[in-house]
Amino acid sequence: MHIREATAADRTAILEIILPIIRDGTTYALDRDMSEDEALSYWTESGKETFVAEEEGQILGTYFLRANQAGGGRHVCNCGYMTRTSATGRGVARAMCEHSLRHAVSKGYRAMQFNFVISTNERAVRLWQSLGFEIVGRLPEAFEHPTQGYVDALVMHRRL
Amino acid sequence: MHIREATAADRTAILEIILPIIRDGTTYALDRDMSEDEALSYWTESGKETFVAEEEGQILGTYFLRANQAGGGRHVCNCGYMTRTSATGRGVARAMCEHSLRHAVSKGYRAMQFNFVISTNERAVRLWQSLGFEIVGRLPEAFEHPTQGYVDALVMHRRL
Repeated sequence: MHIREATAADRTAILEIILPIIRDGTTYALDRDMSEDEALSYWTESGKETFVAEEEGQILGTYFLRANQAGGGRHVCNCGYMTRTSATGRGVARAMCEHSLRHAVSKGYRAMQFNFVISTNERAVRLWQSLGFEIVGRLPEAFEHPTQGYVDALVMHRRL
Repeated sequence: MHIREATAADRTAILEIILPIIRDGTTYALDRDMSEDEALSYWTESGKETFVAEEEGQILGTYFLRANQAGGGRHVCNCGYMTRTSATGRGVARAMCEHSLRHAVSKGYRAMQFNFVISTNERAVRLWQSLGFEIVGRLPEAFEHPTQGYVDALVMHRRL
């Protein structure tokens, strides 16, 4: 699996990956009805570096990395990762997170923080924990899950 | 003290309040060097409702209220409050927070969350606690304080 910076030519593949996850609405606090342009803008907007994970010519996942706060908070970065639905269970998210941790170190960040990990997304919580992230906050009933109602969201953090 | 929605006529007063606090850089994770236009845009941008606290014709403080997340997270709101430096200690922040809690209820929000309360801002932490907020997260060394170095930031939360 090769992880590299996204280019304009990856637009279609990125949308194929992120739109079903946004429409599903169970793992990200994003407007489920956002347009393709809004979705792509969100994922690739100014201030974010966007990467894709490629294997045998197919894009299997994508992530962004950005400073989580401005000013005195800019030494902590934040990432979002999405794996192509058909490629789940193949270690794509793990590979992207490992890549992002290395990239964050190379950019001088001191920590990585996830602001809003949905507690019912147990696969993700376990994966981040296995990569050294700790739960540093629990936001009670902060996410309205489409089928499970109000569930907690977690703040997860890892020093670099 | 009268708290009301901000209008275009409040532009100068809002800038008089927020610019010194942004330049100071000890309580908000914002670019200390941002321009006046950037500062005003940040405080009044689309998606935020902006209010001012007025007493005898002078604007003593200002706050914004917005949804803290989109999609499944939009039932939780977030606020930022700033008091005119010369008016600290007169209950302006408390009055604005009480106003924002009532306003948030009227808009149907189920909770209010502060994402990044600098731990060294003890006056604010105590005030929010006295208004029913609990610390639900601690972000280790998430803020580089201009004089105190890396200090924790707190996530604070109150049900409505």
